[in-house]
Amino acid sequence: MTETLGFIGLGKLGMPVAEKLMEGGYALRVYNRTAEKAAGLVAKGAVAVQTPVDAVVHGGTVVTVLADDRALLEVANEEFCEALGTGLHVSMSTVSPVTSRTLSERHAQFGGRFVAAPVFGRPEAAAAKKLWICASGAAASKEAAKPLFDAMGQGVFDFGEDVGAANVVKLAGNFLLTAAIEAMAEASAMAEKNGVPRADLLNMFTSTIFNCPIYVNYGKAIVNARVEPAGFPIPLILKDMHLVQKTASDARVPMPMLNLLIDRYLTMLAKGLDRYDAVGLALGVAEDAGLHW
Amino acid sequence: MTETLGFIGLGKLGMPVAEKLMEGGYALRVYNRTAEKAAGLVAKGAVAVQTPVDAVVHGGTVVTVLADDRALLEVANEEFCEALGTGLHVSMSTVSPVTSRTLSERHAQFGGRFVAAPVFGRPEAAAAKKLWICASGAAASKEAAKPLFDAMGQGVFDFGEDVGAANVVKLAGNFLLTAAIEAMAEASAMAEKNGVPRADLLNMFTSTIFNCPIYVNYGKAIVNARVEPAGFPIPLILKDMHLVQKTASDARVPMPMLNLLIDRYLTMLAKGLDRYDAVGLALGVAEDAGLHW
Repeated sequence: MTETLGFIGLGKLGMPVAEKLMEGGYALRVYNRTAEKAAGLVAKGAVAVQTPVDAVVHGGTVVTVLADDRALLEVANEEFCEALGTGLHVSMSTVSPVTSRTLSERHAQFGGRFVAAPVFGRPEAAAAKKLWICASGAAASKEAAKPLFDAMGQGVFDFGEDVGAANVVKLAGNFLLTAAIEAMAEASAMAEKNGVPRADLLNMFTSTIFNCPIYVNYGKAIVNARVEPAGFPIPLILKDMHLVQKTASDARVPMPMLNLLIDRYLTMLAKGLDRYDAVGLALGVAEDAGLHW
Repeated sequence: MTETLGFIGLGKLGMPVAEKLMEGGYALRVYNRTAEKAAGLVAKGAVAVQTPVDAVVHGGTVVTVLADDRALLEVANEEFCEALGTGLHVSMSTVSPVTSRTLSERHAQFGGRFVAAPVFGRPEAAAAKKLWICASGAAASKEAAKPLFDAMGQGVFDFGEDVGAANVVKLAGNFLLTAAIEAMAEASAMAEKNGVPRADLLNMFTSTIFNCPIYVNYGKAIVNARVEPAGFPIPLILKDMHLVQKTASDARVPMPMLNLLIDRYLTMLAKGLDRYDAVGLALGVAEDAGLHW
């Protein structure tokens, strides 16, 4: 029997995830704020609905992939939680751990279950079923979500029963990738102004001691000064960095490197570069050194 | 016919490199400031000499692996360059590009050749013949050094004819690895104070999007709070960071992330932690967050 899932949020990440779920044999009831985006999925058999609540199957499973905490909290309101009832909400958005804990309690009022399942991987990785999934929540809920995870990613890491834990990990990862971009950018600017092309520098490192996806992919983007089209637009990465800052600050953790990155992105926005990809901060580093990539 | 090489500097890196060269069939004339360190090599057939100049074979090849610019400039003085004559000096120390250019000119006065060949790899990597070598200098000189490189490492990257170029790359790499330590440490402190053990966090990242030697090895050291014995003691990494700073500053390149790392290491030294490994800065990050690893 084909299981029907609710699916909410067809952004850069949501769209390929929805496609993988359909390829995995699930029927989808999809909602997206901009309704036209659902057309491609509808052509493949998905049902488009008019409100988030309409996407929910009572006692079933709903997946949300939304832009930020506010959007997620608005979508998963009391009415939504009541409509889902004893079902399962798999939340893939990058949000604060506090938001996951709040939603978990909201669902619990109606006997519902909540799993935080943020992922790592650019949209291309999602399309290739190469996402890495971080999951947290009650063991039985994660077990129930496992077939979905298998349909959309290459592996799941379990961070325990606190639903906020996977969000903490996701935030940490986005901070790490941003720090890697700044580090490569500073090293590249230093090298280029000393006669070593950044391509030579980064090609060496990303084929030896830094031969991992983050350095390889963002290193290539820095070498090619490829800041558009944005797979990860600056307003989104800055939103994440502010979540890291709040999460760290609430727990009394100074993160000087993070603060530097936030200032860098604020400068990009101050210059009207909202459309740039996260890797765009490398251009800021270069510009500060008098270079024009 | 067995070729005899001069070899100067039996520190943490120099010792395993000298051993690889002997295993590769070279006869060595070794000099080390602390003479006793040569005993093991002498037992295997090396000849220990009393001064750097005594290690040099006129018209032959000499390898230097010294702690800093001053030591290298003192060893390779005019008398040394004259003794080497038209021979080849392979310099593996982490020094500034300016020092390499100075020495290249000093050798040229006597018809001698100079190749900068700093390497990446901890002492264990050197012992396993897993070093990555960055080479710069005249093409013919690098060609002459190639058999030595083959005997000590797993690969050579050629950074062109400017002898300083390989030093720029080495400095950039040491900055990148230090930045990676700080980033992992800040992420770990944030995660731990939010209930996620740093082992869970770092094990996930170093087996997925950061699965490269620098993150894997230093990540493991952070998880285990393993700051001794120091493969890369703080005074040495701080020396390197100051070289990066000078090289960047001379070329007018602001590196805010670098400045933060320098302050972090200065604090470690201010607290008398000279004996700690470079990864020790992670303890400083944790301590600032009220954690005790």
